[in-house]
Amino acid sequence: MTVVRQDVDRAAGRIAPHVRRTPLLQAESHLVLKLESTQHSGSFKARGAFNRILAAGETAALPAAGVIAASGGNHGLAVAYAARALGVRAEIFVPEVSAPVKVEGLRLLGAHVTQVGAIYSEAYEASRKRAAETGALEIHAYDQPDVAAGAGTVAAELLEQAEFDTVLVAVGGGGLVAGVVAAVDGRAGVVAVEPERIPTLHAALEAGGPVRVDVSGVAADALGASRIGQVAFDTVAARVSSVLVSDDAIVEARRALWREFRVAAEYAGAAALAALRSGAYVPAAGERVAVIVCGANTDPATLAG
Amino acid sequence: MTVVRQDVDRAAGRIAPHVRRTPLLQAESHLVLKLESTQHSGSFKARGAFNRILAAGETAALPAAGVIAASGGNHGLAVAYAARALGVRAEIFVPEVSAPVKVEGLRLLGAHVTQVGAIYSEAYEASRKRAAETGALEIHAYDQPDVAAGAGTVAAELLEQAEFDTVLVAVGGGGLVAGVVAAVDGRAGVVAVEPERIPTLHAALEAGGPVRVDVSGVAADALGASRIGQVAFDTVAARVSSVLVSDDAIVEARRALWREFRVAAEYAGAAALAALRSGAYVPAAGERVAVIVCGANTDPATLAG
Repeated sequence: MTVVRQDVDRAAGRIAPHVRRTPLLQAESHLVLKLESTQHSGSFKARGAFNRILAAGETAALPAAGVIAASGGNHGLAVAYAARALGVRAEIFVPEVSAPVKVEGLRLLGAHVTQVGAIYSEAYEASRKRAAETGALEIHAYDQPDVAAGAGTVAAELLEQAEFDTVLVAVGGGGLVAGVVAAVDGRAGVVAVEPERIPTLHAALEAGGPVRVDVSGVAADALGASRIGQVAFDTVAARVSSVLVSDDAIVEARRALWREFRVAAEYAGAAALAALRSGAYVPAAGERVAVIVCGANTDPATLAG
Repeated sequence: MTVVRQDVDRAAGRIAPHVRRTPLLQAESHLVLKLESTQHSGSFKARGAFNRILAAGETAALPAAGVIAASGGNHGLAVAYAARALGVRAEIFVPEVSAPVKVEGLRLLGAHVTQVGAIYSEAYEASRKRAAETGALEIHAYDQPDVAAGAGTVAAELLEQAEFDTVLVAVGGGGLVAGVVAAVDGRAGVVAVEPERIPTLHAALEAGGPVRVDVSGVAADALGASRIGQVAFDTVAARVSSVLVSDDAIVEARRALWREFRVAAEYAGAAALAALRSGAYVPAAGERVAVIVCGANTDPATLAG
């Protein structure tokens, strides 16, 4: 199952009234930052959530049970936000250990929150069972074509806003990178950046398919998928360069975003820039680089690091 | 002494290689935010500092003593930043009570810092005396035409980036609003926004000239001039609407910038938006409004309020 440019174009048309066209910051003569961190709900995830709901609504009435997702993080916030904006019921499943502040944030957006299971995968399985009972529309955090195509609209925008040779994008489950590859469609290179401690795509490319990896490190709250999605793997294999960055490099890049630009980013949101600043990715002379700052759902007290 | 559009155009030409063209965020269909908070040194002040130094260098060699300013805040950081970038010596005078972190920040930028006097005006007087001795180029925080014209380049950019009917701008000593009025030059309305507790322009417009006001409140660190500058008064009188906002409104607007956009702003940087959100300024139906978010030199721990 792959995502192609046409899917991204359809997504862009659907979600345009609901998402922000996020700003571009010219950081250096050959470097632009796409501030997707200023998107509704604080990350690019709003794009996929809107697209999934709106696409489903085109072919049939949405189920009375509304939508359902499992996530105590960016995806959960995005689904809750999009559902509220579209007047759709949302159920969000999170593990019992989820921080009260996150649960409260979801409830403030009007979502019905269920805390179940010791770890994420148990909450996810419970959400699937519940969806089977209620008929609610499942919105996966990354492994659905409509979710990936929605995420790709950030790169479609970027193509309209700037000329660049290469775009750097952080990878967790791979929804964003799949959408970016589809949107760019060969018009620029795509560098997939992962934390060394969560190398889902890197390991999959080596193994020839999605494999389970251990998950740890500073960016695990947002990039902590334990394997790359099938949609992402099918879409991006052989179409991206894969580089890894250390947690130290991510921490440094996030601090630099604050100190040099007063841009707030979560660790995952700084991972792509970390590849550039740490030398994990070295552009050629004259190469114009775009970096997607993909989220800022973070405690601001930690920004100055 | 007034500033006119041509001064702003000259400033823009001079400083272009040194300052960021800051991004625009489309916040609502009729509202754009100019994220000048992402400017070098964390505020619009870098524009005026660069313009003052570069303009002085056009007519004569810069003095060996370099430049001198009095400010423990945004202006001091901007002068130190611009001087370093241009390879010029900088002396910054700050009151003895200045926070060690601010003094350290100035020193990290290579400035020679002198702590003198109990309050700002004493540090300022000491800097003037020192300048008279050394021949250093004085850079006033707002009351010099080159400083105001440099600040105005933010509005010249804005005119290129967006169509708007009205621009809202925070006022302290008035350098920014003077530059904005000059840059806009009648092509849009200018609303000058001041904290109720530092109404320098408001009081001057009532009195028919600059008068001393009491200074207090959340934005005093950046908008805390005790009277409007003469350059500002001469440039903007009769060419702006003047509105006042409460400290509560400023706090609310700053919190909203973080919660809704993940945009970091200092209190002064949120004052202009506060006028809109609090109803101190009410646009007409269909009126397109631009708000300048003018600085983000703030403790990020306080952003979520």
